[in-house]
Amino acid sequence: MGNNSKIIKGNFIFTPGFGELKIAAASFIVIEGKRVKGLYRQLPAGYEGSLVTDYQDKLIIPGLVDLHAHAPQFANRGMGLDLELIPWLEQYTFPEEAKYNDVVYAAGVYKKFVRELWQWGTTRAVLFGTIHKAATTRLMALLAQAGLGGYVGKVNMDRNSPAALSETTAQSLADTEAFIQDTIDRYELVKPIVTPRFVPSCTPALMSGIAGLAQKYNLPVQSHLAENTREIAWVRELHPECPHYAGVYHKFGLFGQQPTIMAHCIHNDAAELALMAKNKVYMAHCPYSNTNLASGLAPVRRCIDSGIPVGLGSDIAGGHEVSIAKVMAMAVQVSKLKWLISGRQEPFFTIPEVLYLATKGGGSFFGQVGSFEEGYEFDALVIDDSSLAVAAGNPFTLADRLSRFIYIGNDKNIIARYVAGRKIEEPQF
Amino acid sequence: MGNNSKIIKGNFIFTPGFGELKIAAASFIVIEGKRVKGLYRQLPAGYEGSLVTDYQDKLIIPGLVDLHAHAPQFANRGMGLDLELIPWLEQYTFPEEAKYNDVVYAAGVYKKFVRELWQWGTTRAVLFGTIHKAATTRLMALLAQAGLGGYVGKVNMDRNSPAALSETTAQSLADTEAFIQDTIDRYELVKPIVTPRFVPSCTPALMSGIAGLAQKYNLPVQSHLAENTREIAWVRELHPECPHYAGVYHKFGLFGQQPTIMAHCIHNDAAELALMAKNKVYMAHCPYSNTNLASGLAPVRRCIDSGIPVGLGSDIAGGHEVSIAKVMAMAVQVSKLKWLISGRQEPFFTIPEVLYLATKGGGSFFGQVGSFEEGYEFDALVIDDSSLAVAAGNPFTLADRLSRFIYIGNDKNIIARYVAGRKIEEPQF
Repeated sequence: MGNNSKIIKGNFIFTPGFGELKIAAASFIVIEGKRVKGLYRQLPAGYEGSLVTDYQDKLIIPGLVDLHAHAPQFANRGMGLDLELIPWLEQYTFPEEAKYNDVVYAAGVYKKFVRELWQWGTTRAVLFGTIHKAATTRLMALLAQAGLGGYVGKVNMDRNSPAALSETTAQSLADTEAFIQDTIDRYELVKPIVTPRFVPSCTPALMSGIAGLAQKYNLPVQSHLAENTREIAWVRELHPECPHYAGVYHKFGLFGQQPTIMAHCIHNDAAELALMAKNKVYMAHCPYSNTNLASGLAPVRRCIDSGIPVGLGSDIAGGHEVSIAKVMAMAVQVSKLKWLISGRQEPFFTIPEVLYLATKGGGSFFGQVGSFEEGYEFDALVIDDSSLAVAAGNPFTLADRLSRFIYIGNDKNIIARYVAGRKIEEPQF
Repeated sequence: MGNNSKIIKGNFIFTPGFGELKIAAASFIVIEGKRVKGLYRQLPAGYEGSLVTDYQDKLIIPGLVDLHAHAPQFANRGMGLDLELIPWLEQYTFPEEAKYNDVVYAAGVYKKFVRELWQWGTTRAVLFGTIHKAATTRLMALLAQAGLGGYVGKVNMDRNSPAALSETTAQSLADTEAFIQDTIDRYELVKPIVTPRFVPSCTPALMSGIAGLAQKYNLPVQSHLAENTREIAWVRELHPECPHYAGVYHKFGLFGQQPTIMAHCIHNDAAELALMAKNKVYMAHCPYSNTNLASGLAPVRRCIDSGIPVGLGSDIAGGHEVSIAKVMAMAVQVSKLKWLISGRQEPFFTIPEVLYLATKGGGSFFGQVGSFEEGYEFDALVIDDSSLAVAAGNPFTLADRLSRFIYIGNDKNIIARYVAGRKIEEPQF
């Protein structure tokens, strides 16, 4: 056994494939460096006498992945939710984001946000910052300090934006490149991502320019797509030359030319979905946000079936729950309404299916992340669900215990967190 | 000021009417005995020098009312939710309820359940027990001991039920009458309620018989109505002589002849809704349950508009959240999907609207409960939302603070609870 190895024992639950729940009760996982070497019922030869961290009857699941959240909207959770997307952006979101010109204010909120990510077991997150380079760089430092993995974007906005959040095209490009150069090699697990807010906020010149930066530095891209019907109508007005919303991003080099995540994808037509599948553009499904902002019921299963990679997003603060476990439950819930509305044609999600989306589904954007298969980076949560026990007469199965943690558990049930093989403790800030 | 008076100061928020939010910042409420005497900006003459419990900047809202929950399903929360109503009843619910023949087992679970009601700020609850007289009587004792208000039903089931939960008609009637006589005068705030499980579980003779008991002892009635389309088809097969599901209850004297609550009411036709409105039959809207069991999107606003009294229910364990605050948020969320599906015709709920449903709406079943108007029984929650603050730069309004508590708060934010004028402390059991 190498010096850089560790062995952990417990009840491992994970999803090698979509809909496939693997339960390895009372098993051993061997981790070499940051990666899983193997998962065993009995410790294999060569490891006898090695130190084992024994979590006994606890559940161990892969760390949760949040594919879409706006860190600067953390302060806006649970407010203004009687509005739809565009007025909500104008009355709540933009005034808050304007404050991030002040790095001291930003650091205060970002510390609380990163602590909550840690608390709720999000081990990897793909985040929007604001247009502000300094505040966004600070957010990356805090994530790295907490031991979390992530992609973080300095947002680009050079049209149709309030004065306090408007950049010139040149300044937006210059700041983005400086931000990239400043952060690209600074942390192992936290990297920059190119982040046009959405089509209405970015001129063609800006979109082309940042697509060039994504290629030059080999970076991924994130944005929003087809969240709200009024937003879609607006994009159509702005770009009558494009066949559809996705086509605008595609035209300017921001739709899978580099690895790409699009949040929401509720109202896409068949041609857009085919383009997403072809270009392997990720859909970040954000069921709380889609419900809170009355955006719609995303066709998630149809996307998965057509080969689009899918993960889950909290979409703070369109969504109010940082917890990806709660987002999983909500993904099941809205899928049941979708099933009803489709005349029971589109099957609703099961717990194994949403666990996949929240772990390996979203995790694949980070490489081999989100599973306990050999070669995967060991991201894990250790769950002590004893507070959820009710009576001696209820011997729950491991699958039912997982379901109960997802529906009725909370952050207190997560007693240990690992990211890329390393145990991460509560952030000291 | 009388000996039996108390004065409380804080930021009072309540809903005298549906959609009407009343905010009385830094105000005084005078309570005489169990009832509100008045709410004042300045203490009126005669009260100078009286002792004031000053909750300072805290929010004070009416206690929350749960119009529908199954206490014995507490142990089943968060499990088996990949099933629809009928198989879920057969695989999860009935086997658990059969255990309540054992009063020791029952008391163990009921203590945990009643503690959670207290924890999450439910001050009044309308509960199903099981068919078991002794266990159900024990549940009432625990509620009374905790200082909560409630109606509790011994369930009636004499057809289409598993052996362990089947009563003969005669035994069911005899046990119900004994249960009523045993409990009707025992507690001030906890009373029995006549509780046919639902039409498929009760023969005509049983329904007629318990309707007679409801009249004889002047008791209210609770049951389920039109939750699931297969359930409705089953009722139609059982009672082809009745025009609709509601008509079955009505025929046998269980539909408003005494004050009545029907849980769910998702798929009723216009004639049924008209009958509900005419008979003032309450609808207990249970949005978590309706979503978890893929039952449907209830036409709640239509019911309210047509004059049906409506309150909210957790429907433990079809719903997994004991917290009526979370049920409020979910009621808003599903109403947004209903709005979308209706082609934006049926407006979605706002926070003031669901606060009304969760307080005065459901509270009216108990009399003058759920408001801070003069004459109302003083049920209240004192909310310390300081843990939800984010930064000095966020001076939230009182309305936004309420919204944030509902969406992102939890039981820890509730620092005091009052029921009928009395402060109730954590149950000591």
